[in-house]
Amino acid sequence: MDNLTNLSEIGEFGLIDRLNKDNIINNSTTLLSIGDDCAVLDYEDKQILVSTDAMAEGVHFDLVYTPLKHLGYKACVSNFSDIYAMNGTPQQILISLSVSSKYTLEALEELYEGIRIACKKYNVDIVGGDTTSSKSGMFLSITVIGSVDKNKVVKRSGAKKNDLICVTGNLGAAYTGLLVLQREKATFMANPNFQPDLKPYEYVVQRHLKPEAQRKTIELLREKDVVPTSMMDISDGLASECLHICKASKVGCEVYLEKLPIDYETTKTLEEFKILPETAALNGGEDYELLFTIDQKDYDKIKDEQNISVIGYITDESLGQKLITPQNTSMDIKAQGFNHFSKTE
Amino acid sequence: MDNLTNLSEIGEFGLIDRLNKDNIINNSTTLLSIGDDCAVLDYEDKQILVSTDAMAEGVHFDLVYTPLKHLGYKACVSNFSDIYAMNGTPQQILISLSVSSKYTLEALEELYEGIRIACKKYNVDIVGGDTTSSKSGMFLSITVIGSVDKNKVVKRSGAKKNDLICVTGNLGAAYTGLLVLQREKATFMANPNFQPDLKPYEYVVQRHLKPEAQRKTIELLREKDVVPTSMMDISDGLASECLHICKASKVGCEVYLEKLPIDYETTKTLEEFKILPETAALNGGEDYELLFTIDQKDYDKIKDEQNISVIGYITDESLGQKLITPQNTSMDIKAQGFNHFSKTE
Repeated sequence: MDNLTNLSEIGEFGLIDRLNKDNIINNSTTLLSIGDDCAVLDYEDKQILVSTDAMAEGVHFDLVYTPLKHLGYKACVSNFSDIYAMNGTPQQILISLSVSSKYTLEALEELYEGIRIACKKYNVDIVGGDTTSSKSGMFLSITVIGSVDKNKVVKRSGAKKNDLICVTGNLGAAYTGLLVLQREKATFMANPNFQPDLKPYEYVVQRHLKPEAQRKTIELLREKDVVPTSMMDISDGLASECLHICKASKVGCEVYLEKLPIDYETTKTLEEFKILPETAALNGGEDYELLFTIDQKDYDKIKDEQNISVIGYITDESLGQKLITPQNTSMDIKAQGFNHFSKTE
Repeated sequence: MDNLTNLSEIGEFGLIDRLNKDNIINNSTTLLSIGDDCAVLDYEDKQILVSTDAMAEGVHFDLVYTPLKHLGYKACVSNFSDIYAMNGTPQQILISLSVSSKYTLEALEELYEGIRIACKKYNVDIVGGDTTSSKSGMFLSITVIGSVDKNKVVKRSGAKKNDLICVTGNLGAAYTGLLVLQREKATFMANPNFQPDLKPYEYVVQRHLKPEAQRKTIELLREKDVVPTSMMDISDGLASECLHICKASKVGCEVYLEKLPIDYETTKTLEEFKILPETAALNGGEDYELLFTIDQKDYDKIKDEQNISVIGYITDESLGQKLITPQNTSMDIKAQGFNHFSKTE
């Protein structure tokens, strides 16, 4: 601990200088980056996508089991995911960070290392931010800017009757990873000599701590010349997102429980918690997979893709939003999701 | 208190719906606003300016004397100021808000009312945001997006030898207002029956609680066809900002103490605190005036403007950054500024 640097020693300007010293620019749209009142961007004839995501210590992350490097990485990826969900390409971020002086410079450099790794992997520039102190805890808000070809924006509102409903990857894994981490934390709190063995849960824990955004899917769809009719990323849970798309598009849907893609490790781990995999797939958040609808004429273009599952289809609004069980019974889709406000002081 | 709504009653989605229900779009550059994964903007052939500002409860604002409506207003204005400081026009904001459940819905609606009033006055659209809970306190981060004609961007780095140094309005007023509010708070804490009389301090208190951005100056300079050679807004204090411009432009400067514009109420109030007005003008933050440099050929165009003062000129870098007293002695400009990290836990 002797070599750690208190933030009060270097001050705000010193901190900002240190955190930004290795900043590299990757995009030709970034004309001027950190160091002035604003960054300057030139998007020429593209449309611009902007989104922001906030994360608060103790609510969105628990530093007992969240390495700061992973936190930085995840905060970026969850933002990039929003840009992909509009069929765009993320290109710049601004970082708003507020931390109490209990954090050391070295801790914040870890956080920034995670941010830089994500930016490098996804080819995104850090173009601005504001780093200030807080009375307690850490608050991290990232704003992402991206671009999309004119007329290629995919909104939530374009789903039409008979469109196929697709999801990428597999669902419920990030939530399952969170359950494992929470259980190990509780055991550790009760017995500090306890050494958690996360090896059997490596995949689900990684899905929670270090998720990825669906860049490959967006590139694949471009390559195959498929423009989804509607799309969003799965951050609150499939059930909640299905309802969002149906509400925005004024349509109904049928989703088949047996079609939900669920990883084997997710299923096996959930047995320990006595939770049905389908429940986690429908209501677990933070998978950052994409939910999208396509016209039936595009089915042949995606039907052999391992990473894309067709889970149902769009119906008339009057038929409601339905889950269909393997026994062919039908029930309403309900959003469980989280209500963070009910869990705090 | 009976009619107030706990955030836990309405949840995050309910809160977001309520806060955004009156959202109006003013700019043709805003193609799609709140309600999807991203907002969609079209800036055609303009360059885009982006900036973000973070404010934390107990560090940047004290809710004992900061009405939430003013806080929302100020958070917007401080961001708009960054866009004007690049010679641009602010057009969209994204709001990132994290609050503990001690806040009621009605309190947050107050905050949003202040945000909306500022946006209406400055013709800016609210196009996105993220509203979440925190373990304690409030954290507010606003990202602003604006535009500027290609080749009209004014950076900090363009000041040249012999350019004139100008500031708008008057300096030190916001800091003086803060001193008054802190004094009245201390008196009130010692004696809760004490009724503060802020009437004699109305101007300086307003400058602290409800500052304005220099839209009019930017419009005036455009009208007069003056493009400053460098510019920034005064948020940390004139001394600190002078050093920023000199460092970025690789120049020196001479600033004349007697030329610093200071309001009469500021001077009179500072007597009570035994603080020299020049000290407040140099080191007081949050005035949101503009500091800019112009080529001498443009002097005639601005010399009769009441709101613009010429306070010095740019010199060779080797001469350093100097303050000149009325007695014609010279001293180094030093940035005092704040170091928030030294003031927290």
